Amino acid sequence: MIQHLDAQNKSIGIFDSGIGGLTVANAIQNVLPNEHLIYFGDTAHLPYGDKSADAIRFYALKISKFLLEQQCKMIVIACNSASSAAYNTLLEFFDGNVLFVNVVDPLVSAVVDRGYSEIGVIATKATIRSNIYRDKIKHKLQSSKVHSLATPLLAPMIEEGFFRGEISQSVIETYLGQDQFKSIDALLLACTHYPLIKKEIQEFFNHKVQVLDSTDVVANFVKNMLEKEGLLSNGKEKENEFYVSDYTSSFEDTAKMFYGKSIELNTINIW
Amino acid sequence: MIQHLDAQNKSIGIFDSGIGGLTVANAIQNVLPNEHLIYFGDTAHLPYGDKSADAIRFYALKISKFLLEQQCKMIVIACNSASSAAYNTLLEFFDGNVLFVNVVDPLVSAVVDRGYSEIGVIATKATIRSNIYRDKIKHKLQSSKVHSLATPLLAPMIEEGFFRGEISQSVIETYLGQDQFKSIDALLLACTHYPLIKKEIQEFFNHKVQVLDSTDVVANFVKNMLEKEGLLSNGKEKENEFYVSDYTSSFEDTAKMFYGKSIELNTINIW
Repeated sequence: MIQHLDAQNKSIGIFDSGIGGLTVANAIQNVLPNEHLIYFGDTAHLPYGDKSADAIRFYALKISKFLLEQQCKMIVIACNSASSAAYNTLLEFFDGNVLFVNVVDPLVSAVVDRGYSEIGVIATKATIRSNIYRDKIKHKLQSSKVHSLATPLLAPMIEEGFFRGEISQSVIETYLGQDQFKSIDALLLACTHYPLIKKEIQEFFNHKVQVLDSTDVVANFVKNMLEKEGLLSNGKEKENEFYVSDYTSSFEDTAKMFYGKSIELNTINIW
Repeated sequence: MIQHLDAQNKSIGIFDSGIGGLTVANAIQNVLPNEHLIYFGDTAHLPYGDKSADAIRFYALKISKFLLEQQCKMIVIACNSASSAAYNTLLEFFDGNVLFVNVVDPLVSAVVDRGYSEIGVIATKATIRSNIYRDKIKHKLQSSKVHSLATPLLAPMIEEGFFRGEISQSVIETYLGQDQFKSIDALLLACTHYPLIKKEIQEFFNHKVQVLDSTDVVANFVKNMLEKEGLLSNGKEKENEFYVSDYTSSFEDTAKMFYGKSIELNTINIW
């Protein structure tokens, strides 16, 4: 028997290509401890950063369908590559049946509100190729200059635990030492893995550049949207659920790093 | 109308999770210029190194079925993760309908023939987790010591073109500077990406360690097997074919780096 929940006590679904989106899940849980989260990491297809937009859209549709079946009131696309490639498709396809939140718009709003004049954006190849940050920022803040760079080695480097060391310093310097970033006043970390090296990046710029990531801005955006819709949960009755589409033991270790504490990953085949 | 080819003039199918296996395809083409190659890079699922053995077996079965439909006389599993996880499954499933070659056994034979006493093995997590190199070497060369290490940052580093520089030096030193490699006399590069940093690794060891990869040994193994079976082609009538399961422009650039010259990638959906 399917239990019919009050709309506000349904879950928040969160998905990513892998475990990077756990940084967003963690931020949402901190801001909204009453909410029940269902996380889906598409580890069978990770990373999305190298995939085509069509492939990412197909994966995002299937995952969203799964999350809807789990009675989610909202689905957070906790992945910049999927937010860029699939957000509009998901809105169209599910046509008002569920609230969708992407990780791009809240970050763009934060930048626009603060009126930065020269903005750097670093992300996966898929996100940079989509031009989504450049287009959205320029649309609202025409005077700004946007410098975008695909930094595909950062995500695997972080996943393998190489930060605060010689390797991460070298990689960060190679990517961020480029001339185009010499006079930026803000840098957007447009990949849900990057919050783990935020401090190192701030230090690289001697704290003279505002380094923004999507964790807290997305968590607050989610809170505001649920408040506005009258959908804030009034109490949590069960533990959060974490699913992956393919399981290896190393995911569990990495998951701890991204979520901040140990979690149990359940494997589920939705393909 | 399907054209029925003489058995020896059928193609050699080669597959990998992505484009790394092009190093093996290139070696095979150099040793056997008369052979027609059909390459399949499973870029929709790359990299296999983080996937579970079950997932890899499923992908390998589908790809082998596709290559058989293209009239291949032999299928080369040009990927260590897939060779470890799927070779036995493929042999059983296709039960003598096609010749299968993996990239593990030829490299193990080379090591055993030369009788090294302390052997290092570096590879993806999937290959190392399978223990295939350790088990096969110890089975034939019981006196040897085998030191295995998963080096998951090497493949993305190479794919992004970071070699012969500060980053690759740092990464190589971090992985290979470990105590367990202090007294090895041979190091196996058990991933088809690694031939691209073979020279750097040789230099790291001051040329005092034999660094072996699977390109030439596999190419010669393929030649010997086709000779033995009377299946060497007597002439090539069409250009090699290169397929990927997901296409982005960056694959084409990377493909050139691995194959040594520009090739055209065709996208095909076999899923």
